[in-house]
Amino acid sequence: MELKVIAYARNGHTDKFGIPRQSRDESPILTRIVFEPEYKIAEALRGIEGYSHLWLIWGFSKNQSEISGGPNSLDWSPTVRPPRLGGNKRMGVFATRSPFRPNPIGLSSVRLVGMENGDLIVSGADVLDGTPIYDIKPYLSFSDSHEDAQNGFAEEHKDERLEVTGYGITESRDSGIPEEALRDLEYILSQDPRPGYQDDPAREYKLDYMGWTVTFVVEGAKVIVRKIEKI
Amino acid sequence: MELKVIAYARNGHTDKFGIPRQSRDESPILTRIVFEPEYKIAEALRGIEGYSHLWLIWGFSKNQSEISGGPNSLDWSPTVRPPRLGGNKRMGVFATRSPFRPNPIGLSSVRLVGMENGDLIVSGADVLDGTPIYDIKPYLSFSDSHEDAQNGFAEEHKDERLEVTGYGITESRDSGIPEEALRDLEYILSQDPRPGYQDDPAREYKLDYMGWTVTFVVEGAKVIVRKIEKI
Repeated sequence: MELKVIAYARNGHTDKFGIPRQSRDESPILTRIVFEPEYKIAEALRGIEGYSHLWLIWGFSKNQSEISGGPNSLDWSPTVRPPRLGGNKRMGVFATRSPFRPNPIGLSSVRLVGMENGDLIVSGADVLDGTPIYDIKPYLSFSDSHEDAQNGFAEEHKDERLEVTGYGITESRDSGIPEEALRDLEYILSQDPRPGYQDDPAREYKLDYMGWTVTFVVEGAKVIVRKIEKI
Repeated sequence: MELKVIAYARNGHTDKFGIPRQSRDESPILTRIVFEPEYKIAEALRGIEGYSHLWLIWGFSKNQSEISGGPNSLDWSPTVRPPRLGGNKRMGVFATRSPFRPNPIGLSSVRLVGMENGDLIVSGADVLDGTPIYDIKPYLSFSDSHEDAQNGFAEEHKDERLEVTGYGITESRDSGIPEEALRDLEYILSQDPRPGYQDDPAREYKLDYMGWTVTFVVEGAKVIVRKIEKI
């Protein structure tokens, strides 16, 4: 089957580094779904405002695939090393949400926040800016929700969070960053964006989001922001 | 993006008529996921047994698309008439799970029941026998489950069920049908397989499942089975 791009995702994740590894209801990050001219038809969205959540079916880009530190192409591999397992344990690709799949399709449930000029505004999408979208479906709780599902190896890692401190966060510094971008960055950093389990407190990371670069280190379960600057 | 078929679904739904309209946890219907030779690799499933539920991403076939009484091809339309709304009210295609989408991709959460000879056995899939599968992902409750999601127009129709009675069900008749096929048929009939809201108690329907043909009528909220015969 040949998939046609119906829309593109637009958000502050211009850098692959920092994209949350799964969609999360509590994510404040907004994404705009901008339809391609052929699919920008008001009628096609009739009734969608009655749903609180939607599914996005989208494509991993070559760029995004590098997040996991895997091969530099979208070739698939029968086993992958999930970052949440420290990057040194192999799991079957169909037991993970890794991008290195036979068909590099991503699946994310997002919250429908609003509609504007024929675009959809959603929150919680774990996608790079410019990600191609292939389908949008309503989320149906009676079919799609399994609150008590067993989450395999992901279970024990699902609530890992880092405390975010430092420059402009716990220290009052005026970087000029807008409130919204700062709130998003705090969320992104709390999710531990480091590739695999790198555990070197001296290592400085830089992450771009919404036109801002944040510099930080990680000590134990604490992110210490060193600087926030306009790109 | 060009999708490669990684597996085919095998189940008793050799007839498009009778396939439940969504996947449901309570569905007893078993489907076997048979991998194509290139993807039949034990390693690719390592760790999958730790998950209770999986996602299937699959393709609507031309045949299946006829279920909804829509156009006789997979052309998409900005609006569709959901059968659950009586087939006479138009909704935007992205507000429905209709097959007549720009990319005719289906999405179903299923329960992982077992593994056998490198195949996966799942329950609850709402797919035709022979459906191509493009991806299999683990279901992650912390990301995918939204118990309180608002279901739009689908909400008020989600629990509609018919009572199943008659030949071989409430009347003791020995058709020779195996226990398992009968249990599945009772479930299928309870879901009201009629296209749209046809409401003619005199109209006799025939449905094929697992090599058996069931003949039935519907009176109000009651299915009356007239006959069960081997095809």
